[in-house]
Parts: sequence; C-alpha cells; structure tokens
Amino acid sequence: MNANPKFLNATAQVDDAAVKPLPNSRKVYVAGSRPDIRVPMREISQSDTPVHSGAASQRGAPARAEPNPPVYVYDTSGPYTDPAKTIDIRRGLEPIRLRWIVERNDTEELAGPTSVYGRQRADDTKLAHFRFHLVRKPRRAVSGRNVTQMHYARRGIVTPEMEFVAIRENQRREALAALITRQHPGESFGAAIPNAITPEFVREEVARGRAIIPANLNHPESEPMIIGRNFLVKINANIGNSALSSGIQEEVEKMTWSIRWGGDTVMDLSTGKHIHETREWIVRNSPVPIGTVPIYQALEKVDGKAEELTWEIYRDTLIEQCEQGVDYFTVHAGVRLPFIPMTAKRMTGIVSRGGSIMAKWCLAHHRESFLYTQFEEICEILKAYDVSFSLGDGLRPGSIYDANDEAQISELKTLGELTDIAWKHDVQVMIEGPGHVPMQLIKENMDLQLKYCREAPFYTLGPLTTDIAPGYDHITSAIGAAMIGWFGTAMLCYVTPKEHLGLPDKDDVKDGIMAYKIAAHAADLAKGHPGAQIRDNALSKARFEFRWEDQFNLGLDPDKAKQFHDETLPQEGAKLAHFCSMCGPHFCSMKITQDVREYAEKQGVTEREALAKGMQEKAQEFKEQGGELYSRV
Amino acid sequence: MNANPKFLNATAQVDDAAVKPLPNSRKVYVAGSRPDIRVPMREISQSDTPVHSGAASQRGAPARAEPNPPVYVYDTSGPYTDPAKTIDIRRGLEPIRLRWIVERNDTEELAGPTSVYGRQRADDTKLAHFRFHLVRKPRRAVSGRNVTQMHYARRGIVTPEMEFVAIRENQRREALAALITRQHPGESFGAAIPNAITPEFVREEVARGRAIIPANLNHPESEPMIIGRNFLVKINANIGNSALSSGIQEEVEKMTWSIRWGGDTVMDLSTGKHIHETREWIVRNSPVPIGTVPIYQALEKVDGKAEELTWEIYRDTLIEQCEQGVDYFTVHAGVRLPFIPMTAKRMTGIVSRGGSIMAKWCLAHHRESFLYTQFEEICEILKAYDVSFSLGDGLRPGSIYDANDEAQISELKTLGELTDIAWKHDVQVMIEGPGHVPMQLIKENMDLQLKYCREAPFYTLGPLTTDIAPGYDHITSAIGAAMIGWFGTAMLCYVTPKEHLGLPDKDDVKDGIMAYKIAAHAADLAKGHPGAQIRDNALSKARFEFRWEDQFNLGLDPDKAKQFHDETLPQEGAKLAHFCSMCGPHFCSMKITQDVREYAEKQGVTEREALAKGMQEKAQEFKEQGGELYSRV
Repeated sequence: MNANPKFLNATAQVDDAAVKPLPNSRKVYVAGSRPDIRVPMREISQSDTPVHSGAASQRGAPARAEPNPPVYVYDTSGPYTDPAKTIDIRRGLEPIRLRWIVERNDTEELAGPTSVYGRQRADDTKLAHFRFHLVRKPRRAVSGRNVTQMHYARRGIVTPEMEFVAIRENQRREALAALITRQHPGESFGAAIPNAITPEFVREEVARGRAIIPANLNHPESEPMIIGRNFLVKINANIGNSALSSGIQEEVEKMTWSIRWGGDTVMDLSTGKHIHETREWIVRNSPVPIGTVPIYQALEKVDGKAEELTWEIYRDTLIEQCEQGVDYFTVHAGVRLPFIPMTAKRMTGIVSRGGSIMAKWCLAHHRESFLYTQFEEICEILKAYDVSFSLGDGLRPGSIYDANDEAQISELKTLGELTDIAWKHDVQVMIEGPGHVPMQLIKENMDLQLKYCREAPFYTLGPLTTDIAPGYDHITSAIGAAMIGWFGTAMLCYVTPKEHLGLPDKDDVKDGIMAYKIAAHAADLAKGHPGAQIRDNALSKARFEFRWEDQFNLGLDPDKAKQFHDETLPQEGAKLAHFCSMCGPHFCSMKITQDVREYAEKQGVTEREALAKGMQEKAQEFKEQGGELYSRV
Repeated sequence: MNANPKFLNATAQVDDAAVKPLPNSRKVYVAGSRPDIRVPMREISQSDTPVHSGAASQRGAPARAEPNPPVYVYDTSGPYTDPAKTIDIRRGLEPIRLRWIVERNDTEELAGPTSVYGRQRADDTKLAHFRFHLVRKPRRAVSGRNVTQMHYARRGIVTPEMEFVAIRENQRREALAALITRQHPGESFGAAIPNAITPEFVREEVARGRAIIPANLNHPESEPMIIGRNFLVKINANIGNSALSSGIQEEVEKMTWSIRWGGDTVMDLSTGKHIHETREWIVRNSPVPIGTVPIYQALEKVDGKAEELTWEIYRDTLIEQCEQGVDYFTVHAGVRLPFIPMTAKRMTGIVSRGGSIMAKWCLAHHRESFLYTQFEEICEILKAYDVSFSLGDGLRPGSIYDANDEAQISELKTLGELTDIAWKHDVQVMIEGPGHVPMQLIKENMDLQLKYCREAPFYTLGPLTTDIAPGYDHITSAIGAAMIGWFGTAMLCYVTPKEHLGLPDKDDVKDGIMAYKIAAHAADLAKGHPGAQIRDNALSKARFEFRWEDQFNLGLDPDKAKQFHDETLPQEGAKLAHFCSMCGPHFCSMKITQDVREYAEKQGVTEREALAKGMQEKAQEFKEQGGELYSRV
C-alpha cells in the first residue's frame, strides 16, 4: 500500500453520513418508455394534519386527521441514497447509459487509452496501488461519426437521455402523480400523466443550442441532466485539491457530499499531483456530470511554466480526459492576445487561473492563443466523445471596480463567435460568466450574453455583489446568483465561504451548496417554473400546522433545521407542540391566527360584507365559545 | 442579590470580546460646527504596497513601498470600541445629546415616570436588585410644544442631530479627508472638505417625511442616525427574550454584539417577565436607536389574553416606554376589522405577532382596532417625546403563496392614510414591509409602498425569496433584502439562521448582521451611494497585492476571514506570501496577472495598436527578462 495517508486504500468506503437517506425520504424511480429509463426522485413523506387544525377543521369536517401527500423533489444524489444498491467505490457505479450508447451503433471500443499521457499512467506500476481499476475500455465515435446529443437532436432523434431529462424536469407531473397513486419502494409510477416538459421539447432546445445535456460516452454512470434556461436552474460545486491540500479520498467524499445536498454537476479543479488518478476515482463514482479545466493539468505537465505549454500537450490532455469520461471542459479560448492590454488598468487584472495562464502564454510567445487558433480541431475531438464546451471567461472581473469592462465584453463577443463554430460541429456549448458584478449591472451581463452567444446556456460564478465580505462570499454571491438565475442563467457555479481565503472543506462545500440551492430555487420561483412552488407551499403548510418534523424534512437541510430547533426546545414533545420557542406557549401568532381563521371562515361572504359595513356582530358568542381553539399546553 | 442567574448582578461588565477595537482599527471623531458634535468613524489603517508590486512598479517608480491611505467606515459600535472611554453598564452611556435637548428649551424634566405601570415598577422594592438606577429624570415636551425632528425640520431649523447625521453619511468626504490629513487618536479632522450630503439636505428630507431620525429625548445616549432612501441603507437587529429563554445580561450583550458588527438600530422584542427592567438596561447602554412593539408588553399585562387588552392599558404602556427612551414603536394600526376575513384563504394566515393579537381583539369585540380609532391620540403622545412610528405590517405574508395578496395591500393603503395623520402632527413615520415575497414580486411591493405611503421610509423584514430553507433564512432573505434595498427600502430588518426554528443566540445574531450588512452594502453600491465603493476598491486592491491582513481588516468580519485563511495556511509567514492556498505557490492567477499587467502597461498605446494588427513583437525579450516578477517563494 502507498504510505501516503491521503490516498485511498483498497478498503475505503464512502462515509456513512453520505449514503443514509435523508429523513422520511426514499428513492423512487419514474419509468420512461423503456424499462431501462428509470428516473430517480426523492419522495418526502409527510405526517397527517392533526385533528382540529388546518384545512380539515375549517371545512367543518369531522374531527379526523387529514393526510398530506408526499412531495417529490429532484434528486441528484444517485444510487448513494438508495438502500437497494450496494455502494463499492472500488467498482464504481453501474453504467446505466452504456446500453443506450452501444445501441446507437456509432461508437467503438478502443484497445485502451489513446492519449500518450493516458498510456504512460496506465503503464506506470508505481501507481498501481492508488489507481482505479476500470475493466471497461474507453469508447470513441467510429471515424467520421458525430456522437453528440446536439447532433442527434438536430437529426430529429429523441435519445433516451432526452427522455430521461424530460421526466426529471417535470416537478408538477410528479406532484400530480403523487396524488393519484402511492408507491412501493423502488417501484416506478406515473405513466399516464401528461407532461409539461416533453422529450420533444428537450430535443428542440438541445437542437437549437439553448440547452445542453453533458454526457460523455465514457461516463455511462451518469444520470442525464439538462442545462438551459427553460429548465430548472442548476448548480455546480467545485472540488479539487491543490499542491498544498487534500488527497483522492477527500475529493471523492466531497463529490458524494456535494450531490447529497443537491449539486447538479461537479467540477474537479485539482492542481496537485495525481490529477489523473483523482479524476478517475471521481468520474467512476459520480452520477452527475463532471467538468474540468484541462489547461490546469496541461500546466502540471510542464511544471507550472505557462510559456512552455504547447498545443500538442494540451491536445493530448483533452484526449486523455475525453477517454476518462469528463463531461464538459472549460476552455478559455476567448482570451485573445489583443484583449490582454485591456486588463492593465484594472483593479484586479486577470483573476481566472485559466485566463491568466493563457495570457501569460500569449505574451511570452507574442502569438494568438492556441485555444483560439486550434478551436476547430478541439471541436473535432470533443464531438467524438460528446464532451460539451464550457467556454471560459478568462477575463471576468475580479472586483466590483472591474465589472462589465471592455476586456470582459470583448471576450464575451469572442465566445459568441466560437459558439457558432462549435455549433457548426454540433458540439454542445455553454458560456461561463462573472464573477464580481454590482446588482445594477447584472442584467446587462445576461442580456449581452443572450445577444452575443445566441442563447447558448449561461453558467455564472455568482456573481458577487460586493467585495467587502471575505468569509461570507457564499452570501455576497448568492444574491447575484439568484438574480442572474431569474434573468436567465442556466447554471450557477457555487462560491463557498472560503472563497478568496482557502480551500473549502466538507462544511464549506455544504454551505456553498445550500446558498446556491436557495439561489437556484428562488430563481425557479421567479421564472414561474411549473411546479417549483409545490415544495414551498408544502413546507409553509407544515409550518402553519406545527408539523415540525415535516417542516424540517421538506427543507433543504433537515439536519440543520432540526438541530436549530432542538437547541431551544430539545424535548421530543416540543416537536408535537402547537407553539415554538420564538414566542412560548402563551403567545404564538400562528396559534392565534388559526383561531381567527376558523372564525372568519365560518362567517363566510355575508359576514365579510357585514364587516365592511362596520356592523356590530355577535362578539360575545365568540368569547363564550372560549376564543381559543387549543387548550393550553 | 437576586438568586436568578439570568439577571444582571451589580458587578456585571460587558464581555471583553465586544469592546476590543477591531484589528488595525481605531475610533476617530469628525467635528461639526460646535464642539459637542463629534461624529464617530472607524479608521482602518493599511500597510504599504510592497516593493515591486501594484501601481508603484507599473509607473516605473523607484522600487519603494507605496503607502495606502486609511479607510473610514460608518461606525455603529458607540463608545464600546473607544479605548479612551470607560464602560460601566451600571452607569450607562454618556448622554451626549442632553445639552442639545435642554438648549431647545421646549421640554421639561418630570418628577418621575408618569405612567401608572412605570410608577409601580419604580416603587416595587422586590425589583431593586435588578433595576437600572437612573439618576436622570424623564423629560417631556412642555405642554403645547412639539419636539419632533420633523417639527423642527418643517420650521427650517437644522438641529445638531441633523448636522450629525449629515457628517455621518458622508463616506466620500471622509475618504478625501483621509488623503489630506492623517489623524492622531481621538482627534477631530476634516473641517474644510465640501459635503456631498449637507445638513440642509437632511433637514429637507426629514421635513418632507422621506427620512426619519429616531431620537427620543429620553434616549440622549444615542448617536443620531437617519433612515431614508437617499441615505445609506440601514439594518436592524431584533433581540429580546421570550418566556422560555434568556435574561437581561444576555440581552444587553446581544445589543452590544449587534452594534459591534454593524446593527444600526436594535429592536427589543422581549415577551417574558421583567420586560420593563430589561428595556431600561438596554436603552441606557445603547448608542443606537431602540425600537419596541408596545402591544407585546401590553399583552403581558393582561396575562396573554388578547381580548382583555384595552386602550387604557396600551396608552399607559406607550407613555411608560416613551419615558424610558424607546426611539420608535411598531404600531399595527393598519390591521383593520374588515381586512381580517381576507386572511382566511391564506396558506399561513396572520404571522405577525402584533397583527394576530390585534386581529384576535377585533374579532372578540367585533370592533375596529383601538390602534386605528385612537391613532390621533397616539400621535399626541409620540410628539411629546419624539418617538417615531414604525407602522407595522400585521398582515404581511408568511409564505410565498400569500405574497402581495389583498389583505397585505389593503393594510398598506391604510398605513398610507395613517402616515398622513401622523405627518399632520409632525410625527416621524416609517412603514414596515414583508416578509415572504418571490423575486418577481419584490419591486411591486416597493412601488406600491412609495405610492400609497408617499415616500415615507420603507422598513422590510427580508423579504424571504423562498420558503424551503429553514436554517438558512438569513440567506433566503438577504437576497430579497439586497434587491428591495436597491429599489428604495431604507432599512432592512435582519433575519437570523434560527428564523422559524428558535431564538437566536450570539452566533446567530452575528450571522444575521453579516448577511444584512452585505445586503445593505450591495444595495448602496447598486444605488450609487457616493463613496460606497471606496471600501470595495480598497479591499480588492489589498487582495490583488497579497496584503492579506489588510484584506481581512477591510472586510466586514476580520476575525472570520483570518480564521478561514489560517485553517489552510496557519503559518504567520503565509500572510506575507504572494500566493494563497487556493492554488499554491506555483500556480497563482493573481501572481501571473501582475506579470501580464506590468508588461502590457510598459507597451502602452502603441503596443495595443500593434497587437490589434496582429504584428509579431519581441516576445523573446519578455522571455529573457525571465517572464516572472517574483522569485519563487
């Protein structure tokens, strides 16, 4: 075994805390048109509304508990939260998409990695102890074929991936289904409910480039998801070690932790040693698409000397990562030589790592960036594996002062030109965006992106709306993220509290995810996404009816909600109580409101008219009835 | 001594952590037109920009360290962070406004409290051990006089309070002053700098009701501040015990903790026993305005039975609190009888405590609320002490589902009518707002408020932009708060992570304050408040120049920033390093950027043109120079 404790040993398992289902939740699968399309959802069951409370009593119904239907939510956590699955990270996840890929009959199995570096690593016996042992061979398009989802979509083909995401996006549909039929564990349901989002709609959006389905054919373990502004807003979690920090085990754990709390994709931004092996472990165990910035690894290969980078090294790195299964690449091809002097007057210059590497290369060679000049060749590579572009914003602003400046906008226009080229090759594209932007300039970013990049999905980092809160940049940026998500950004790259200060640990990852789940959901609500409000309504109803456990469980973080509640009222009985610690038993607005509500409801419309006329009514009667609905606790 | 450990004993002092100046910060005072107008600011000093870095090297200046001017920030922390002051909470703070009040010659000292309850408490010997012993007598307007800041403003008088806030709001002015003259501890400065915000402008805004200066003449310890949309956005922190929780000492500590981190006002929402005594300790030790909801205490006086409330009990409570020095009262006078049935169809009914109390009273008596019918009499009381109205939104929505409904908007219109009545009496008014509002409905709230309430300052609770994140409602609401602040809300009432779950402890108070300082500052930036961006720029420059300590100290929470940094790089030397833990020493975008920047800058305009033409340039020269600015650490 390797002596370095940071690396995985052969018996390492996923942390228990990351595989336990969330409270009162279970995994269900919605069936598609064929038996191997099984779309995961999380079913949160609720307790009944107690007797003499809520809607039941208002309707004057018999004093009987009223059932509350389960709530179905989008589930990114993969097989980890399915007790029916055995998780063994040494074997990786089931390749659920493999059959679909093979059936298309346009790819071939390779003898092994075709990149020089991939072969070197495979042949290096010193690496044997911390290498993931994949028995499956990498695949690639048969020569002359294009295997992207966009290519299929443009030819009118609805792939299983497209149908999968259509089912997955239909939150309203699942809520309806829930009302019709209760499910047994692991069973599929809901075949007859009409869809709000159809597979054909998904195909159309992918065909016109307004949405992407990142789905490398060498990552068949992934559960298809879609990124586009006519779908639910997604969030990305960045993980990855640096030369100074964590190892493989920790990064795999950060991935499983990210998806447990709702990360829709994960970017592995590792810059330390063993990038190749770390990535393999992550991809093989990830049910969500994995993104990378290949220039980081290319730079490692030239010992951090940007000026020694070459197209050949970069190209080999792309192939290496394509064959490992990375689903999307950040490529900073918009950092062009003429734009670099535009950054000289900035407060904070170039803050993108990829952007600054390429800027340095351009200046050292006094040549246009090879990412720009070789862009078509990059497209040729990507379309043989269906890797999507995430066109990087290497010149994004690093401070409020630099927001929306000439350098940033010039690069954005270039990303639009590159989008056209990629689309010519049917390669899927999303566009990365800032960064640091004060609120009044956020909409301009979105509008210009839609215009210059012809509605390719926007994928922003925040933006941070002020620079003055290091330690709280998950919040400074959640504000900007919610707004730009509302305006049309398709995916929000999270920012953790450690931004600008250090590398995130697991707690920071969770804090970042939570802030961004909030931003994304607030955006879904504001955009009027069908069904987004079902969860808010269910939680508010639970809150109003003092169903404490349901309130916790319907929230984004049941563990923390329960913990906070119990800090003030730890007794188990308090979670059944019709009051809370904010006011105490004698003084609860919710409680008073229920009295008011029942009374007002009883009086009906006539009463309302009477009230409007200011007439006196039988107040005494209300008093005599006790004026209280609950006996004092 | 009282046996209850929750109550202050005679030797209790303020927690050390709450009185230590923040790192590299010191209190300075800006002098006004008379020697007793001394406006506190926090001066944050910075280290020099290191040799061979930043602007200095770009200009080709000699390799000499470049000084960075101190940054001046608005300081709510009062004398607690002034080492020259002795803090003794048994004696309370200096009554810095007392002379101004007395000089106006329109008030008189009373023999003692004039409220029945105030006299009872003063005479109750059992309370002696935890009573604050105030030697000063309460004051009240001489019969027939009106002593509100609005009254003075409308008569053309610029009070010392108005001049104080004008100086306090001028962030740009202080930044300029800083460039001109360096200060000695405790000294005043900056007399000759022109003001962006003049005392006359403050007077005009107060006269037309677009801003308020909450300043009860019985709270002479307060440092004047202003709430209005043409000034910096303010934040309020709620504290207060409930029947289940903390005591006096803890509440005083929450107040000092709140103002240390930037709370502009504090509301004491106590509902437990000894409300009167708790409040006295808080007011006597608070340099910021204190708000309350008098109906809470009135309800305590009738043992929590809303239907037993009477106008007489409420009126006596108002007088009791006016004479203690409360600066603004939340009065739910807009909860009218005809509006109550409108809440019957809501998801979450009436969630305001005050609103639900009054709704219950109205239904029990089948009469219009006494707060509404006696409103003019309330004005008569408030104008004799200069207590401001915070007209409560008792019918605010408690869930996304209920946002902007008929009940809410009907009440808002009523608050507009009441504003007119209060203004007839020259009583200062602000208007409370929601609550729970999805993003797309936030602007409508602001627009309707401006219209119905004729630009009286808006004071909102968040709003929360989604209901699905109990445990994180400081974030769900900071999103809404930042937006509504940008749209024109003058003060943001914070929400802590414990909202809906429990009572906030000190950590929660700080988390709430931080989220709201961020929201308020993001709003100031978006509104283009003069000088707001100075702090962002200074912090970003420090970040870019690897001045780690300056980056921490210029932020909202230096302690947390430093702690986060040190988790990854604990060595003291790391804080001088030209890299950070995100990338490690060989791979830092900031570092690369500085190389790029110097190079690009040297080439100048000619170079930029040459680049645009795509001409080849002397790339080799750059390489030969080493292509690196710093030697490797």
